[in-house]
Formats: sequence, C-alpha cells, structure tokens
Amino acid sequence: MTKHDILSSVATSDSLNQKVSQIAILGTGLLGASLGLSLRAARFRGSIIGYGRRMATVERAKALGCIDQATTNLAEAVDSCELVVMATPIGVFTSLLERLADYGHPGLVITDVGSTKQQVCRDADRLLPNPAHFIGSHPMAGSERQGPDAAIKNLFDHKPCIMTPGKHTSPRAISLVQQLWVSLGMNVIKMPADEHDQKVACVSHLPHAVAAMLMRLADQWDATKIASSGFRDTTRLASGDPTIWTDIFKTNRKQVIKAVDALSLELQQFRKLLVDHANDDLELQLQQCKKMRDNWAPKPESDE
Amino acid sequence: MTKHDILSSVATSDSLNQKVSQIAILGTGLLGASLGLSLRAARFRGSIIGYGRRMATVERAKALGCIDQATTNLAEAVDSCELVVMATPIGVFTSLLERLADYGHPGLVITDVGSTKQQVCRDADRLLPNPAHFIGSHPMAGSERQGPDAAIKNLFDHKPCIMTPGKHTSPRAISLVQQLWVSLGMNVIKMPADEHDQKVACVSHLPHAVAAMLMRLADQWDATKIASSGFRDTTRLASGDPTIWTDIFKTNRKQVIKAVDALSLELQQFRKLLVDHANDDLELQLQQCKKMRDNWAPKPESDE
Repeated sequence: MTKHDILSSVATSDSLNQKVSQIAILGTGLLGASLGLSLRAARFRGSIIGYGRRMATVERAKALGCIDQATTNLAEAVDSCELVVMATPIGVFTSLLERLADYGHPGLVITDVGSTKQQVCRDADRLLPNPAHFIGSHPMAGSERQGPDAAIKNLFDHKPCIMTPGKHTSPRAISLVQQLWVSLGMNVIKMPADEHDQKVACVSHLPHAVAAMLMRLADQWDATKIASSGFRDTTRLASGDPTIWTDIFKTNRKQVIKAVDALSLELQQFRKLLVDHANDDLELQLQQCKKMRDNWAPKPESDE
Repeated sequence: MTKHDILSSVATSDSLNQKVSQIAILGTGLLGASLGLSLRAARFRGSIIGYGRRMATVERAKALGCIDQATTNLAEAVDSCELVVMATPIGVFTSLLERLADYGHPGLVITDVGSTKQQVCRDADRLLPNPAHFIGSHPMAGSERQGPDAAIKNLFDHKPCIMTPGKHTSPRAISLVQQLWVSLGMNVIKMPADEHDQKVACVSHLPHAVAAMLMRLADQWDATKIASSGFRDTTRLASGDPTIWTDIFKTNRKQVIKAVDALSLELQQFRKLLVDHANDDLELQLQQCKKMRDNWAPKPESDE
C-alpha cells in the first residue's frame, strides 16, 4: 500500500447524510438501481432521484424501491442535487456531460460508475464549466445480468472501488464521492485514470474477451455438451451485455490490445512447455499460479 | 443427439444393487471420497472399500463416512469386488493397471475417473489380461479443493459423465459402469477416447491453462488488488492441484497444443477488430458469444 490509499470500509452513510440531501442516479439499470438499493440499506436519509431515457425502466426501479423519484427530464433530476452519479452505459457519458454542463448548478459534484476512466475524465475536463467537481469512479462490482430487476442491495459491499482524481479535482469532490462509496462498504483505491485503465484491461476486459473466445471455441469444437462447472465459471463473463462491452473495449482499445499481446505471449510460452515435454517447469509454473490465486482469494470456494 | 447417447438421469442405485455387492474405490481424495458419499446417498447397499497409499487419507475418508473399509493393500481391496473405480491422480493409473492385472479376478470390471482417456484406455488394452472388462469414464465434476475433507455427496449430480468404450469393451462392462454413473444422477455420454480428449482440451484443459495465465498476468501487472468477482470466477481453476494438472496436460499434450493454437488465433482476430476500430463486428461477435453462453447455461447466475 505504498502508492495507493485503501480505506477500511465502514458501511454507514452518516457522513454522507451530513452533506448530501439529494442524489441523482443517471441510468437505473443493474448498477444504478443497485446503487439506490444500497444507499437505502446504508441508511442514506436523503432523496434519491432516478433518471433514464425510458420511463418504463425508471418507473420499474422506483417500484422496486431503488429510487424515490423517477424522471426522464435530466434538468429536473439534477436541479436540487449535491451529487450526481452517471450509471448509464459509458457510450452515453459524453452526451450526459454536455447536458450536465448546461443544467448542473455550479457546486454540483459529478461522478460515474464506468469501467474505463481515461475517456470520461478527459470529457469532463473538456466539457464541464468546472471540472474540479468531477471525479471518475469505478466500483468493481457487477453481474452478467441486466436491468433494475437484477439489482441487489449488497452488490458493492466489500468490493474495490477505484477513484481517479485528476490534477484539478477539488478536495471537496474527492471527499464527497469517497464518502459515497465507503458508505456502501467499498474499499476505495485512488489511482490515475491511465493506471486504472491499464489494470482493468488485465483483470476485467481481457478476462471478458477470453470468456467470449472460449465460448466460441467450445461451440466450434462441438464440446459444450460435455462442459461442466469449470467451464461455466470461466465463461460466465461471456453473458455480459454486448453493447456495454463494446463500449468498454472501444474506450480502452490500446490497453486491451497490450493485454491481448501479453496473453498471447503467455500462451506461446505455455505451448513451448508442452512441446518440449518440460513437465517439471510446467508443474512449477502451475504451483506459482495456484499460490498467487490462493493468496488473492483466501476463502475456500465451493464448486457449486 | 445424433452421435451420442445421453440418458436422462434417475438418481437411484436399484439396478446397481442387483449386480454389485462390493465396490473398490482406488484413491480417496476429493473424487474418490465424493464417489463413496454419493453412492451412499443414492442408497447403494453394497460394501465400499477404499484403497490408498497413505493410510491416514484412507482412514480419514472412512471416518467421514465416505467408505466402509480402509486399506493400503490393493489385492485385499479388489479381491471380492465386482467393480473397481480408479480415482487416483492419472499419473498413477499405469502402475495401478499393472497391479490390477495381477490381483484382479477374471470378471472384475474396471473404470476410472481420469480427465484424459486415450492413455488410460491404451494402457488397459496393453496391460490387462482381459481388456474387455475395462471402460474409461470421465465424470465432469470437480473442484479446486482437495482431499477427503472436501468431498460432497452431490458432486456428480446432474453433471455430464463421458464413457469411452473401446472396440473390444464388453456390453456387461459398459452396462455396469453406466449404471454406476446414472445412479449418481449423471448424464452419461459415450464417445471414443480420442474425441473425448479433443473436446475436454477445449472446455476443461484450455480454460485451466488460461485461468493460470490470467493469474500470472494480473500479478505481473500489479492488478490483483482491483480485481473483483469476474476475475475471481475466470481464474478459479488456477487454484487446482498442480500435480494433477501437470498429469492432465502431460497425457493430453497434442490436443491441448491444438486448443492453445485455436485460442491464439481467436486472440489475433479479436485484436484485429480492436486495431481496425471494427466496433460493429465486435458487438456482433460478443452478441453471438452471449447467445451461445445463455443457451448453454440457461439459468440466471448470480454474481455472488
């Protein structure tokens, strides 16, 4: 923990309640709706406004208790808020920021939940009248399911949340957004947006691409009928929303390409161990990987 | 279902009880011990003999109720059995078959639970006095956990089990071993050993290798601290036993190399989509993969 700042989580919204009386959540899909539910579970006492383009989705989120008010009017949504969280697909962020530049009042703090951070941070710098009040967030929580009906109130609990302050981000914006995530039980880690995008290319975007490719191969090889729980877990990410994931790959192209190249190299080295009958080296490598995995995920996991 | 024979499972050992009064399980690790527990749960009334090299492990399996008798004497273990299941690591199969050739009585039916099938089937043909009584099995069930303490009684339930009859396998051996797996609730699929090894290279061995490589990369890129549930699932297999997996890769080298090459090609094609900004093609491909995955795994899976 030399470079980054990890806070131990205390799931309570006490300090958030002192500063925020109204939050707007833009987009009430899985993440936005889960955010509303989680705020309520953490005893956030303020008002939660849900905004979306399709009234049916926003109304559904309201019916499920994820938000207090449903609207398709962005100006109305953010008018009395201290804090706005963009929880739409990242492809919508640029146009949202353009409109927030018009509708948002001067002190409004804005964050997001997008899986890539360089683009949204650049857009905020470029588009907002006061970019000091924007800070990027990436709560590392999700599911391959979609929509408000998939919302769960402990989606964020004990997960990492990366915050990417820029050079000009105000201490007030950092503090407010940090209180939001900490109140949901998240472990906040701060790092520059480019470092974030590189690391998630490795632990999120590449695994997604690989899950999709393994699924394709199994289909081509007519092998899915004998696949079992190991394959199920390795390919779970392939069920994610294709539109959302195209946006993610699009906004993190360079880093994903680097990650693909690194994996290709690993595959070639592994192949060479097989070709050379280098069984001792192979076992040593598998031992090292097991140790890394066990250290990272200390709790025993069941196969079911 | 044109080529293969899938039986709908009925988890009861009625027909097994009519033909088998004693089963020997060679190796009482996760799979062997789970097999004993599962037989009991399916109301198998016969005696279950557990054999292993280390008495402590076999005695532990007995104490946990996985087997009725514990022995480190192979001749004693198989003497009065109608059916023997080799559940040791596959690296031990050759020497077990050599000794079974000496100790086994003429009518003894032998199967195994190994993850590769060509080598054990070739060894059985070569080593056993009557190879007609051997048939390879691969119950597609497992866990990254090890030892009798990790045994669970429904490990096999509703999972696929591949049986690989050879040219000379007797109908009696096929029928008896099929009754074993069906009694545990497994979906039995029969195919030649070489076809099995090709398909599992794709849906089991390659995913294992990829899980290990993703773990290595995440460690190299110092990215594990921001990894979350997607990464956890994609890399779960990397916690498997390195010795067992080295054996698996060793006995399925050619097919795993083919699978590695196929994945390398997929990675290059995916890379090209990114380089070319071919976002529509990328989204289409992700849609196809999602559809394959959702069709294969119809039940919604939770992120937790």
